[in-house]
Amino acid sequence: MSQNRKIACYLTIILLLGCIVQGEMLWLKDILEAQILPEENVRGEFEIYRDTLELIWEEIVWFPVPASSSNEQAEVAFENSWMAERNYGGKRSHEGTDIMALTDQSDYYPVVSITEGTVEQVGWLEKGGYRIGIRSGNGNYYYYAHLASYAGEWEPGDPVEAGDILGYMGDTGYGPEGTTGQFPVHLHLGIYVPLGADKEMAVNPYWMLKYLENSKLTYSY
Amino acid sequence: MSQNRKIACYLTIILLLGCIVQGEMLWLKDILEAQILPEENVRGEFEIYRDTLELIWEEIVWFPVPASSSNEQAEVAFENSWMAERNYGGKRSHEGTDIMALTDQSDYYPVVSITEGTVEQVGWLEKGGYRIGIRSGNGNYYYYAHLASYAGEWEPGDPVEAGDILGYMGDTGYGPEGTTGQFPVHLHLGIYVPLGADKEMAVNPYWMLKYLENSKLTYSY
Repeated sequence: MSQNRKIACYLTIILLLGCIVQGEMLWLKDILEAQILPEENVRGEFEIYRDTLELIWEEIVWFPVPASSSNEQAEVAFENSWMAERNYGGKRSHEGTDIMALTDQSDYYPVVSITEGTVEQVGWLEKGGYRIGIRSGNGNYYYYAHLASYAGEWEPGDPVEAGDILGYMGDTGYGPEGTTGQFPVHLHLGIYVPLGADKEMAVNPYWMLKYLENSKLTYSY
Repeated sequence: MSQNRKIACYLTIILLLGCIVQGEMLWLKDILEAQILPEENVRGEFEIYRDTLELIWEEIVWFPVPASSSNEQAEVAFENSWMAERNYGGKRSHEGTDIMALTDQSDYYPVVSITEGTVEQVGWLEKGGYRIGIRSGNGNYYYYAHLASYAGEWEPGDPVEAGDILGYMGDTGYGPEGTTGQFPVHLHLGIYVPLGADKEMAVNPYWMLKYLENSKLTYSY
């Protein structure tokens, strides 16, 4: 082997060693960052969530079921059933609040939009029956399920004001389109916050509904 | 160079190349994970926060200022001042809710504990005046500030029931111990959730206070 080839060989080895050391150091940096960042990340994520939730509280305006100006029996009741077990369609947790009609009559109680927003989903769902989904300007999703009927021909993209009648409370769902009577008349309300692209997470609407109990519209029905 | 040394040299280079390729692949794995994990992590953190918050809603029992059974003027008022600017002690954001005394009289309105818990901090703070901090069983921290006086000799570790009188509303703080009168009589309430060891984050008490407005004790004062 010539002197030149020897030098070339050693230089290659030194270069390769250099690469490895540099790689190790980057590796070390990763480990250090992994140990330093998590708590700060947690705080960051929590703050994002806190601020997202704050927007829900700021945008909710009306309780979804108006009071009746004429019928004292037309009341509703709801409990905190957050994550209670549900069995239809496999075991699952209840990600919402059921507002029960004390007068067990379908197509009677109006359901109004809690917020301003835009119609995003409308029509039949096996578990939700006739439902309508409203996306607020802040990006939160309000899901109203088991409606008996719609108040008008809602289509995705239609703008909605807080207090607009969306439809009427019913007992639709738990079967093929048109199924009724599988449970008492009630409104299932779900509220979802966005988590980046194509993901969202349910929040418990119960406390928001308790807050909105003092903000009921009064309609004649 | 002998044949053996040549072989040794080539083997070393191959080994080193192997190390580099392996390093690169681990590197690649990291990049892939960084692109896959964040959204799932976000969901995880958000769910932790959601569940932490849920515990606050479940543990709050009483509005911190009871109603008066005899004095109709003894009312309070509060607004959503979340993150409004405060200037004393440098520019900062308001991490709480101020409950204002409509009767501007110090040492008059009782202040009760919103939750059960344990006394964690008691005594003077420059910004908070005479304050008391209660840690709930779920680990959340309730900070009551600007008290005129304490109801008894609270010490860290003392157990507290929801509704126990902690002290009396005042206007203490914004100076050395004993300073009063720098602002109208009010109760500053802060609520903090734990974020792992030694960290916590303020949440907005306003919506919780709105919810608790329907849950006021009535005391004779």
